[in-house]
Amino acid sequence: MGWLLPERKVKTIHKSFFHLKDSYGSTQLLVDHLRGSSWAELSQIPVESTVLIEGNVVLRPVHARKPGPTGSIDVDVDKVVLLNPANEQCMPFLPSNIHNLPNEELRARYRYLDLRRTVLSDNLKKRSQVTHIIRNVLHGFTEVETPVLLRSSPEGAREFLVPARSAVAAPDVGNADPVFYALSQSPQQPKQLLICSGGVDKYFQIAKCFRDEDGRKDRQPEFTQVDLEMAFVSWGENQVSDLVEKSSNVWRIGGLEVRQIAEDLFGSDKPDTRFGLEIINISDVLHANQTSPLTDSILECIVVRKSTDSDFIKASRALAPEADTNIEHITLTEANRETWLSNSKAISHVYSNIAPTDLVTVNKALNLKPGDDIWLSYRPRRPTGGSTSLGRVRLQICEQAQVRGEFVITKDPHFLWITEFPLFTRDDADKDHLAHGRWSSSHHPFTAPMWEDIGALYRGEAENVRGQHYDLVLNGVEIGGGSVRVHDAKMQDYIFTTILGLTDEEKHPFQQLLHALQCGAPPHGGIALGLDRIMAILCKTQSIRDVIAFPKSASGTDLLFKSPAAVSREALEEYGIMPRQTSA
Amino acid sequence: MGWLLPERKVKTIHKSFFHLKDSYGSTQLLVDHLRGSSWAELSQIPVESTVLIEGNVVLRPVHARKPGPTGSIDVDVDKVVLLNPANEQCMPFLPSNIHNLPNEELRARYRYLDLRRTVLSDNLKKRSQVTHIIRNVLHGFTEVETPVLLRSSPEGAREFLVPARSAVAAPDVGNADPVFYALSQSPQQPKQLLICSGGVDKYFQIAKCFRDEDGRKDRQPEFTQVDLEMAFVSWGENQVSDLVEKSSNVWRIGGLEVRQIAEDLFGSDKPDTRFGLEIINISDVLHANQTSPLTDSILECIVVRKSTDSDFIKASRALAPEADTNIEHITLTEANRETWLSNSKAISHVYSNIAPTDLVTVNKALNLKPGDDIWLSYRPRRPTGGSTSLGRVRLQICEQAQVRGEFVITKDPHFLWITEFPLFTRDDADKDHLAHGRWSSSHHPFTAPMWEDIGALYRGEAENVRGQHYDLVLNGVEIGGGSVRVHDAKMQDYIFTTILGLTDEEKHPFQQLLHALQCGAPPHGGIALGLDRIMAILCKTQSIRDVIAFPKSASGTDLLFKSPAAVSREALEEYGIMPRQTSA
Repeated sequence: MGWLLPERKVKTIHKSFFHLKDSYGSTQLLVDHLRGSSWAELSQIPVESTVLIEGNVVLRPVHARKPGPTGSIDVDVDKVVLLNPANEQCMPFLPSNIHNLPNEELRARYRYLDLRRTVLSDNLKKRSQVTHIIRNVLHGFTEVETPVLLRSSPEGAREFLVPARSAVAAPDVGNADPVFYALSQSPQQPKQLLICSGGVDKYFQIAKCFRDEDGRKDRQPEFTQVDLEMAFVSWGENQVSDLVEKSSNVWRIGGLEVRQIAEDLFGSDKPDTRFGLEIINISDVLHANQTSPLTDSILECIVVRKSTDSDFIKASRALAPEADTNIEHITLTEANRETWLSNSKAISHVYSNIAPTDLVTVNKALNLKPGDDIWLSYRPRRPTGGSTSLGRVRLQICEQAQVRGEFVITKDPHFLWITEFPLFTRDDADKDHLAHGRWSSSHHPFTAPMWEDIGALYRGEAENVRGQHYDLVLNGVEIGGGSVRVHDAKMQDYIFTTILGLTDEEKHPFQQLLHALQCGAPPHGGIALGLDRIMAILCKTQSIRDVIAFPKSASGTDLLFKSPAAVSREALEEYGIMPRQTSA
Repeated sequence: MGWLLPERKVKTIHKSFFHLKDSYGSTQLLVDHLRGSSWAELSQIPVESTVLIEGNVVLRPVHARKPGPTGSIDVDVDKVVLLNPANEQCMPFLPSNIHNLPNEELRARYRYLDLRRTVLSDNLKKRSQVTHIIRNVLHGFTEVETPVLLRSSPEGAREFLVPARSAVAAPDVGNADPVFYALSQSPQQPKQLLICSGGVDKYFQIAKCFRDEDGRKDRQPEFTQVDLEMAFVSWGENQVSDLVEKSSNVWRIGGLEVRQIAEDLFGSDKPDTRFGLEIINISDVLHANQTSPLTDSILECIVVRKSTDSDFIKASRALAPEADTNIEHITLTEANRETWLSNSKAISHVYSNIAPTDLVTVNKALNLKPGDDIWLSYRPRRPTGGSTSLGRVRLQICEQAQVRGEFVITKDPHFLWITEFPLFTRDDADKDHLAHGRWSSSHHPFTAPMWEDIGALYRGEAENVRGQHYDLVLNGVEIGGGSVRVHDAKMQDYIFTTILGLTDEEKHPFQQLLHALQCGAPPHGGIALGLDRIMAILCKTQSIRDVIAFPKSASGTDLLFKSPAAVSREALEEYGIMPRQTSA
């Protein structure tokens, strides 16, 4: 049984060839025009109809092509039953005709036809296999479902709200106000409470999470994470990273090589380490020469070398620097060799005067030769998350070189742990709708400080406290992150109150966690890995929508199910709410 | 490492005994008062604190009790490290003190302490094991995640709505109205569309589902179902039931015996078949005697026999019939032996006159003896779902007999398929908020009619059409249900329009399914099993809340996370909604 594909145009007397596709591949059907009515029947059935075929399995001729799992056989057709016809007038496109597909929006509206394409259905099968492997690897862990309907909590991104009917008694408020659940952004609090309970010491869940963020290519309003939490672990002894690294056969992509690299080297908090073009800190060179900057800034550069970076040199020269950044592009010649740095605009922003000996030292340290390309930039000392200007230039050069066919980036995975970054930030625009200019947590407020920075924490020097968190980056894509958690209730309260400056009302959603920490909670930590992104990498696609059966568009709409949609006023009344416009 | 339990009051000179509990059990600690400071330290640590113990593992004396997995060893303590103290002033109760637990509500507020009890954490571990077995049994099936954020659709129970921010462009309406997603009630439409796509021919998912129903003991606003769908299957060839029956090792409770039994025999659409007291149809006896009822009603009874049902006879006599039902209770004596039926109130509702030969026939057919108890009732001929009055009496007698200690019900599983019941109903109160007096589907509108009833369907005789659906009942609890689906677009549209009388607006949420059926959809069918109920049975508990890590109360509130809760007016404004009261 399967889907009928078009008749092949092959000139063979008295024989026709069709293909029958099912979920595993396609099989060639041989139809003898002179035997029975099969040929007449098949010719009249619209392609993409489901049919039941009876016949004899025959081996293909020795020298015939034998593509796919059923390539070595044909079916000599005896009988044809049409199970359900495809109505040709209704088909917006033929998924079997992969060379003439409509645009993504139309295919999204008819996702059930698009999924008939092998490339997409193979992704779904691979995803199912990967989650099965993950579950087998996590032997000894208890898979626990945590609530999707949770309480609104200001710990991270914008949440989806779910109105509760007035009939539901809210624990906190009177019946006058409408009340809401919030969809789980991540199982962070439930999983910590579970571990605090001691009932389960190794938890995992392949969990649906929800964030009401503006869509991007690699975000969906609902997404899936492989979520882990363990009692009695720490990063110091590397137990969390050990677990993830040992899971290399989870990803079945081998070659797991994990390095801890300073963010500065690649100008990004999720660097792609599959190519070089590392960033060189000129300020450090000058500092060794006892020349200090005017401000707390860093002067740094990328050198694209004519001799060793030939893959990149043309791309570098063709690249126009971003207009609004502190980037300068200099091609080194015999003429400008001694003056490029002192003539640069950047230098005056960072240094008052540069001695000639400084220039000699820099040229020597950078091992510069005429024909090399220099990208020069200055930036504040403290990394602020995201990418620096040079970090973006580095990626653009690589991209351009690939587009021009001058460089082929390896498909091999490059894994990287990013660690020891600041526990608190003031520079995350995504968090400022909650922080309102206060400090916010780089990850979330439950992350423990590095033990050696606890002194700085209690002195209130938030900017000097590094966290026991760790991001896992694969080929420049952040695929996961986690931390060792605070297990001391007093420290947790200090972070909420003194560092983050939360009001009592803002602390309210955390009260059960604070209390649980006082009831003999074990030291604990965990990690969450983004399954959609991992699958996109494994399936070699740019878009996570290719690894999700029924994805939403970048703007969060579902073109297949036509959601979100208006609902009746009566339905809203049950929830004690109404459209805002009608109050006028 | 683990949680410290209280010191045991055992009189041994210079030795104390503590217990260290972890997620796997508890281990006895031996502390020598004369060696080091361990005893002083341990005595001062509050119970339920987490501690790290170093010491030597020693075998217990040969004749000592050896309970639990670590019962054969003790640990002779050398060193004690307090990892995190339990603050005695904060502990609302001690989970280790299982004989003095507070009420369910208080334990729900501190669920993280309640989960420290082994009985609950064992349930979570068993649940994890069961889902792992299910996934291994479903080898060859593709696990596919379907959307949680779906579109509102009138196919079943009341849905949860999720407001979308005004920034999200709704596919259907202008930007003036607020728009909503709906949380998936079940993956019904997505899974059918997936199978229609042909990309996956055997789908499963352990899926979170959401229904905004008033709480009952065995319902939660979010619940989990094991969801299956297959292409090219039918009930006629029993492929769906075969699969579920072959999965007997899924449940690991063996003894899967599946019977197809007429609903009438036990007066319930989910009969508990672990005991007898079957219902006898008196009208059939009289019909054989050529006596016909006045109306289209059935006269029926349960006979609790003095000779064979001695477990039940006392319970039966103590039971008071429900006041508002058509139930009569008669204890048979030598005196009323010839008159009990003709003197009954029930008889006049169903029969105009009963001949003396009828009475003889009935007495003979029922094999009545003085001392037997008769429960007599009449009801409309067509089963209407749920239980009949006699079905309830039957359960009450069994319950009473158990309470009185006169009967012990078997713990062995009794599975039962309920099939061939009507495709449409007018009697389901849960569905009337959508049906408004029209026919509604017993399961859902995608269920195929039995092939032999297709004539009746197209003649518009909705009451005479049986469905290709099947409910699976275990020990009187409905644990799952499914159906063969309609795959013919014309038939599906006829059911929507002509039978169910849906308006164009009501049909709108189904348009993608109707279209998919026209694109060569395969015949398909599936089933969904309620994981929470199955786990409750496996864990031998009455409440599904005992098998859910963080359940909600019967009224849908979460006492731990304090949800639902009020949210700020600013948050609501982003969604274009406001509380209804303020418009006054």
